[in-house]
Amino acid sequence: MSDAGADRPKRRRAGGRAANLRGKGAVIKQLPWSLPINPDKPTEPLDETGVAAIHDGAMRILEEIGIEFLHPEAVEILRDAGCEVAGENVRMGRDFVMAQLALAPASFTLTPRNPERRIEIGGRRMVFGNVSSPPNCSDLDRGRRAGDRESFRDFMKLTQYFNCIHFAGGYPVEPVDIHPSVRHLDCLYDKLTLTDKVVHAYSLGKERVEDVMEMVRIAGGLTWAEFEETPRMYTNINSTSPLKHDHPMLDGAMRLARRRQPTIVTPFTLAGAMAPVTIAGAVTQSIAEALAAVALIQVIAPGCPVAIGTFTSNVDMKTGAPAFGTPEYMRATQVSGQMARFYNLPLRASNACAANCPDAQAAWESAFSLWSALSGGVNVVYHAAGWLEGGLCASYEKFIMDCETLQQMIVYMEPVGASEADVAFEAIKEVGPHGHFFGAQHTQERYETAFYSPFLSDWSNFESWEEADAVHTPERANRLWKKILAEFKAPPLDAAIAEELAAFVAKRKEEGGAPTDF
Amino acid sequence: MSDAGADRPKRRRAGGRAANLRGKGAVIKQLPWSLPINPDKPTEPLDETGVAAIHDGAMRILEEIGIEFLHPEAVEILRDAGCEVAGENVRMGRDFVMAQLALAPASFTLTPRNPERRIEIGGRRMVFGNVSSPPNCSDLDRGRRAGDRESFRDFMKLTQYFNCIHFAGGYPVEPVDIHPSVRHLDCLYDKLTLTDKVVHAYSLGKERVEDVMEMVRIAGGLTWAEFEETPRMYTNINSTSPLKHDHPMLDGAMRLARRRQPTIVTPFTLAGAMAPVTIAGAVTQSIAEALAAVALIQVIAPGCPVAIGTFTSNVDMKTGAPAFGTPEYMRATQVSGQMARFYNLPLRASNACAANCPDAQAAWESAFSLWSALSGGVNVVYHAAGWLEGGLCASYEKFIMDCETLQQMIVYMEPVGASEADVAFEAIKEVGPHGHFFGAQHTQERYETAFYSPFLSDWSNFESWEEADAVHTPERANRLWKKILAEFKAPPLDAAIAEELAAFVAKRKEEGGAPTDF
Repeated sequence: MSDAGADRPKRRRAGGRAANLRGKGAVIKQLPWSLPINPDKPTEPLDETGVAAIHDGAMRILEEIGIEFLHPEAVEILRDAGCEVAGENVRMGRDFVMAQLALAPASFTLTPRNPERRIEIGGRRMVFGNVSSPPNCSDLDRGRRAGDRESFRDFMKLTQYFNCIHFAGGYPVEPVDIHPSVRHLDCLYDKLTLTDKVVHAYSLGKERVEDVMEMVRIAGGLTWAEFEETPRMYTNINSTSPLKHDHPMLDGAMRLARRRQPTIVTPFTLAGAMAPVTIAGAVTQSIAEALAAVALIQVIAPGCPVAIGTFTSNVDMKTGAPAFGTPEYMRATQVSGQMARFYNLPLRASNACAANCPDAQAAWESAFSLWSALSGGVNVVYHAAGWLEGGLCASYEKFIMDCETLQQMIVYMEPVGASEADVAFEAIKEVGPHGHFFGAQHTQERYETAFYSPFLSDWSNFESWEEADAVHTPERANRLWKKILAEFKAPPLDAAIAEELAAFVAKRKEEGGAPTDF
Repeated sequence: MSDAGADRPKRRRAGGRAANLRGKGAVIKQLPWSLPINPDKPTEPLDETGVAAIHDGAMRILEEIGIEFLHPEAVEILRDAGCEVAGENVRMGRDFVMAQLALAPASFTLTPRNPERRIEIGGRRMVFGNVSSPPNCSDLDRGRRAGDRESFRDFMKLTQYFNCIHFAGGYPVEPVDIHPSVRHLDCLYDKLTLTDKVVHAYSLGKERVEDVMEMVRIAGGLTWAEFEETPRMYTNINSTSPLKHDHPMLDGAMRLARRRQPTIVTPFTLAGAMAPVTIAGAVTQSIAEALAAVALIQVIAPGCPVAIGTFTSNVDMKTGAPAFGTPEYMRATQVSGQMARFYNLPLRASNACAANCPDAQAAWESAFSLWSALSGGVNVVYHAAGWLEGGLCASYEKFIMDCETLQQMIVYMEPVGASEADVAFEAIKEVGPHGHFFGAQHTQERYETAFYSPFLSDWSNFESWEEADAVHTPERANRLWKKILAEFKAPPLDAAIAEELAAFVAKRKEEGGAPTDF
């Protein structure tokens, strides 16, 4: 664990007093921005033989069954690289695959327009992103409804506001009131002006991908050469399980690779549906699908940063409904962590739940998902705040609730001290058997920063809680997001850059945006 | 991990079909009774130096500060054993302490009146008990109220009903409508007739302890010699932190020790209040207090089974209110696990939360507590089902909700297979890139037992959920406990034994029960 401590922030709650001052008048006192280092040795459900069995299974899939690449250019590239091609089916030998994987870095950085919000992906780092891609949103006042630009912007503001959210993933909700042909333009404009954190491009056709890269370049005030110097953004692609990568996804990954921007390859392998019913089988297939795309990217851009993702869960075998945060989901995440470390690649997972409202089930499913990510050594947690209904709904209240648990995980990741002062023998001696520690010097010196201080949890006793109208957690969250949105201030952006972004959006809208026939 | 697999139940969901049959007409399909083995390597927040520092701190407390034993006989016993005594203060050298600890077994069994409900404490075993000792109870229909015999009996029925609850801890709620002088008689009668699981005695004066031992002996149809042959029940004692063990607690532990029945020693060390504000300091003090009592027990009955408990958490430094399931609580539990393994003693922790109602906060605090217990290698989880309000309230709905998460943890602890059949290469080949796995032979052979099947979680989609009146988790739990209680059947008990128990209760009531002036 000593290797993790080197560049850890010195002061545990750097926080403490400083944050109190900064927090004056702020809606909540939150943790300062930090990039947590996970100090725990990952939980390993499989022994070496098990890891070798999954590796061998994945290699046999790639060698003997093959993956369909629904992208003629990708197929040609792989044929030229020596793979066996039959139509869209590509088979690749394990030596080839492993040679490609060896080119990919074990970790990389992502630098958004505000370099202070640079994040690191890989190693023992763990970063959290907002919920991405639900068609619906909900809050306690207005209920569940289709997403629109206003709700999209609300969630971007929450994404920016919370320091425990390290990057802005996909659209936190689909703004269906914006025409799909120009949606990416308005959305990225909002993203790049309302946040200064890392953003991503959906791989949904070349225009969208190219437009987003251009906008990220403009927002950063970069030349193309500067843009390509280091990762500035990323895309996430999903295979079409079983055993297929479709055209727009591959196309996006290839375009980013050519500009040396990273792709996260995340197969969506529901065990018993698009993948085998066994955890090992579903992970094996997921790994094969992910590595196939990683190999392609490395052929195109040797050394280009990539990560693999896990989205393996189980279905309710009575209804086919996907389940999340289950024991099988947890073990699949941890096994995927073992495989990612075996291949020396960063791993992405999610804070997922199946619940339909932000109640106890949502909380325990999310907690189970998050603890499997932490115990699995996951580097990137997608959907870390706001996700409900298996990803079909972004909840305002759940976003706030998730940030409370994410903050606690960040504090959990701080090292536990066992110095002489920590062990506190002198304080114990001083207080003796008839005193208490409230007034002890040892306590006075530390109490302001010793413990995590929640902004949402209610620790008052029942009588006080009842007197204060017995407000349940979602209702408390409801009050908070309203205050946060009311007082939101966008991060600074150079006026000339904002203008250039707006001009780009206007020009591309005039040109008709992107095709919508995919 | 291989050592854990030896006596693990062969069939993962032994469950599966058999349980389906057994479950015919039952309110819920639950997991079969099993004694889970935790296969995960424990999370270790401290390195060896840190463990040594806490050990040294604890030993220095015992050697240089001493512990107050508010029990003259205990003091005399320790003086005779060579400890340094000054009034009630006892100081013991580390060699003495370590020699006593070495006498205690690393694990032991507890055999209740139904030997099929025998449990094992220690090693990689993990067992769960019901909530213990709240003065209040609550449910959605009747709200919060003082406990009474009816609610006591309700919770005992739930304790018996759920296979994931392995033992009956203290009173799940205090039945204040029974006079304290005879409360233990009625309660134990109810416990021993409504459940056939391991029970415990409160260490609250010699009469209560002796009466409970007698009743457990009668319920098991045992002679005193048979009773003493192996652990049949246990007590849990709390130190009066800082650095004191009070009379009734010590007295109970000593009485049980003389009959070779186990004691769990659980200091209640709230960091910043009754213990140092640092995690390491609070754990150090907790360990010193626990080991002092363990040493006493070993002097009285060398080799008598014992366990130590952790109840270290933090307080809200603004209000002094205890908090549970916090990052500090989690780390304290894991560090206590390291210390318990260092001393080769079983460890008890809790499923604790501070929330005032069974909402999302209750769920995430409980989930955090439970995952720290599992990742900390904890053997006994007290308060595993039903606890709310920092232990001041037993919730009917929370009990059901907790059993849903406990079941998931039990399934989580089953080994993950990576055999050739698990990796499923042939199934993946058979399905290929254009099929799905629902109909595959590999799936058909496994789908009934492949995944955890919840009894409380609702995995339906939003539309179905809304159509079915959008029932939130506590309301679903409310429906379930009513059905379970309505259909509850007490476990079989020999009529002669039941009569003998009743006669004992009547006789002791006539004698006036126990004094109430403590």
